[in-house]
This record gives sequence, C-alpha cells and structure tokens, in this order.
Amino acid sequence: MANYNVAPLEKLVEQFEKMPGIGYKTAQRLAYYVLNMPKTEAREFSEAIIDAHEKIHYCKVCCNLTDSELCPVCRNEKRDKSVICVVETPRDAMAMEATDEYRGVYHILHGAISPLNDIGPDDLKIKELIARLSGDVTEVIMATNPTVEGDATAMYISRLLKPMGIKVTRLAYGIPVGGDLEYADQVTLARALEGRNEL
Amino acid sequence: MANYNVAPLEKLVEQFEKMPGIGYKTAQRLAYYVLNMPKTEAREFSEAIIDAHEKIHYCKVCCNLTDSELCPVCRNEKRDKSVICVVETPRDAMAMEATDEYRGVYHILHGAISPLNDIGPDDLKIKELIARLSGDVTEVIMATNPTVEGDATAMYISRLLKPMGIKVTRLAYGIPVGGDLEYADQVTLARALEGRNEL
Repeated sequence: MANYNVAPLEKLVEQFEKMPGIGYKTAQRLAYYVLNMPKTEAREFSEAIIDAHEKIHYCKVCCNLTDSELCPVCRNEKRDKSVICVVETPRDAMAMEATDEYRGVYHILHGAISPLNDIGPDDLKIKELIARLSGDVTEVIMATNPTVEGDATAMYISRLLKPMGIKVTRLAYGIPVGGDLEYADQVTLARALEGRNEL
Repeated sequence: MANYNVAPLEKLVEQFEKMPGIGYKTAQRLAYYVLNMPKTEAREFSEAIIDAHEKIHYCKVCCNLTDSELCPVCRNEKRDKSVICVVETPRDAMAMEATDEYRGVYHILHGAISPLNDIGPDDLKIKELIARLSGDVTEVIMATNPTVEGDATAMYISRLLKPMGIKVTRLAYGIPVGGDLEYADQVTLARALEGRNEL
C-alpha cells in the first residue's frame, strides 16, 4: 500500500482529511476529483482558498465576516440600528437573515462561554458589543444557541447590560413548528409550557 | 439572505459544492473551516491543489498516477513484470495493493467501455496495454469491476489478446468473505456456485 503512494496526491488527501466530517475514503474521493478537474478550475479553487483568507475580515461594527469595511447589514441604512441581535457565529446570523423577518442589526460573538473548552468572556466579542451600546440602542436580543454554553453566555451578557438600562430579551424556547409533542424532549416541553401564550 | 453574502466566501462554498457528495450545507461548513484555518495552513492547502495538478501525471508504462517518470510499482525490480493486472482506476490498483498478495504489475485503463456514456475502447488506455505485451508477458488478469461495463471491457480486451497467445484471466466472482448467503443477490450466488472449488 505504502508502496503505491504518490506524495502530492497523499498530501492533498491529508488536507481534505483534516476537515470536519471528512474521513479517509471521502478525502481520497475528493482528492481524485480535484486531480481530474481541468487545470483552470483547480487554479480557481486554489485561489478561492487564498482569497477567502486574504479578503475576508470582521466588520468593524458587528464583527460579522465581510470583505469591505462594514458588512452589508451594518451598511444598509434601512436596517434598524436600535435593535441588536447577538449570535454566536456568522452562520447563525445567516440563519436569522433567512427568516426574512428581522430588520435590526447583528452582533457576532464568535463563540460562547465554555469553561470546559477554556473559552471565557474575554475570548468573545463582548467588549465590542458594549462599545456599540450608545443611546440609540433600545433592545438587545440574545440569540445564542439553546445550549448550556449559549444560555450561560446570554445570562452573562444580560447581567452586564441590564444595569445600563438596556432591554435584553432572549429567543423563545418551545416546540419546533411541525414537530411532534410525542418526540419533544422533556426540557423543551417544560419550556414550551412555561412560555405558553394566550390565544 | 442574499443581503448577507460575502463574495470570496460564497466563491469558496461554490467550489466545495461542485465536489461529489458535497451539498450546500456541507460546502458551507467546509468553507468556514478553511476560513478559520491559520493562514499558513490555508496556503499549504491551496498549494497542495496546484501541486497535485502540476506534479502528477501518468506512469509511462502502466498509466497509473505518479510524480516521477515511472510509478513505484513499475520501478520496483522485485515486481513480476510477466503478469499484468488490468484495472479501471488508480484507486482499484490501490485496493489490489492493499491485499499485499499481488506481486505483478498493473495497467490502468482509466475507465471502462460504456456506450451509454459515450466511452469507447479508444477512450481507454488499451493501445498502451497492447504496446506493453512483449514476449515476457505471460498472463493478463482482468480486474475490471464486476459490472456490465467492466465485464464488457474485460471481454473486449481478452478477444484482442487471445490471438496473441497471451493467457487472459478474470478475477473470481463469488460471495464476499464474511458475507451472508441469505443476503447475497441471485446473480452473485449463481456465479459462486458456477465457480465452486473442490475442498
């Protein structure tokens, strides 16, 4: 087996194998795919990797990913700058955008407080959030994940902001739309009961 | 949603999305992974793609992938050059090598005859195989896949070689080791019966 390795190919396989959810077999398949690409496409792919690294940085207001000074949301004058939705990752912001319901702006923490993984408040973009809270901001929506870490982060931030007189809200917990009561876990069901609304 | 796209990131996502077995969500996950890599690693990855393209070509004897003139098997003096195992792809040769049983050399066709996909004998490395058949070669083992295309290719090649007085063999069909008779398909079972050996 070792007999048959082609070094540049093995190197490419290794690169793919490092990625999340990619095992050796898949890495091999992807490497062969890249090898069979026309040369121009391979060059494009290679450049896309470098480009992404060199052109993308954090928006200086909300810390989302962008290739300009401000991200499209912060740049958009129609967005309501008085409401800030705080999320853990850029992908969470993207998910919120996909609802087409939210008209405020975002703040990306780039993680959540997790003592087990040695991630404390100082590792997140919390200072940057505090710095944004001028008189115009009326509400901060905590949209961190419904996990222990996300909850702890939401709690930590709300304790910082409340003394500043800012309204802090949290996304509603409950049963997912289209879900089945029978299969909902107990904690979710208990939260859904707690948060029940009048009809 | 469109509102939130970062062009260089979207470009990277598109590159991953083209790959086999990678959907939009996975492509996104991979692109974010690449974005979070240290810069040096990203550069390494990008170079690995270009390197694989520029350094890898076909072995001039067996048409396997290699970064030198001859592949390691053709270069190896201990390999028996009188037996050639004909496979469809470099990965098939790798699978054969992994058995650690085979001591001959290979020939890679880079495909199989498939009229439905417009692949005829001239699209495969059959001419290159014929050119190798000097007086030294005593046996050609057809190890193309056990599919209609693989069978047709094996049959086609064996008809070319037999008049040249070369022994042409085919890998045995049968039930896989560790398999279960109950779940073996009828055709495989019939072939296993046909090819039964005396104990």
